[in-house]
Amino acid sequence: MPSEANCSIRKATEDDVGLILAFVRELAEYERLSHEVVADETALRRSLFGTPCYAEVLIGEYNDQPVAFALFFHNLSTFLGRPGIYLEDLYVKPDFRGKGIGRKMLVHLANLAIGRGCGRLEWSVLDWNEPAIRFYKGLGAVPMDQWTVFRLTGEALDRLAEE
Amino acid sequence: MPSEANCSIRKATEDDVGLILAFVRELAEYERLSHEVVADETALRRSLFGTPCYAEVLIGEYNDQPVAFALFFHNLSTFLGRPGIYLEDLYVKPDFRGKGIGRKMLVHLANLAIGRGCGRLEWSVLDWNEPAIRFYKGLGAVPMDQWTVFRLTGEALDRLAEE
Repeated sequence: MPSEANCSIRKATEDDVGLILAFVRELAEYERLSHEVVADETALRRSLFGTPCYAEVLIGEYNDQPVAFALFFHNLSTFLGRPGIYLEDLYVKPDFRGKGIGRKMLVHLANLAIGRGCGRLEWSVLDWNEPAIRFYKGLGAVPMDQWTVFRLTGEALDRLAEE
Repeated sequence: MPSEANCSIRKATEDDVGLILAFVRELAEYERLSHEVVADETALRRSLFGTPCYAEVLIGEYNDQPVAFALFFHNLSTFLGRPGIYLEDLYVKPDFRGKGIGRKMLVHLANLAIGRGCGRLEWSVLDWNEPAIRFYKGLGAVPMDQWTVFRLTGEALDRLAEE
């Protein structure tokens, strides 16, 4: 894959907040979830570069142009007794897919995970996203089919807190 | 629920590591996943009370006896631009279920989430655990049915890192 030579990965800085938000919006559009995006630059800056900060971001560049991002944080497996890396978002702009950028970012994250003593690299996939599912299974990732995430948010979260 | 008066919740300390590991093992047994538990006290102490620490733990007591635990960490929603709380483990010893202890721990976590500016409280449930699913739906939690977690671990993780 000769085009990989043109790919590089760097850690995002606070100057990238606008870029990251644009990527988040593009990803949401691809996931048909644009109606759920309420984040703005202020909130994202605070969450990513405030104290505490809640996630780290990598920017993928192709010929020095930012075309991809990966946003991740640590989780903890009590069964392993060790942290893991949870990849919240991985996005490559459509015109730059198939060039090995997404794979290169996952390789980078796998190395980060091992270097930090993590036992797992995990992420979530929408069930209809078959190209992604094929790609992830090809890496040896295993779908945790028997588990479902439950989410409490908005008024239901407020109501429980008031009990 | 008069028995609730006997329940209290406290933050775990390093002295609780043995207790937490015992709870983790009991939870794994209930989940039919005991074969996956490789954590020991050393690993758990480092992950929970080292620098960095990767999660926080609450202990639920009934008549001053520890009978439950909740282990959680922060995630980040890029759609909200805000952190959330992810509840990795919630466990109440079988003899102490039905006394409102689990619910009280969730109320505590909902308050923590709101107090820390989090937009969501999330956790995962095994699909066959119908009593838990009924309980969580009753709280207003929504199953994220269309998402599946993919996990890369062990040799597959090593292999990707070496690319």
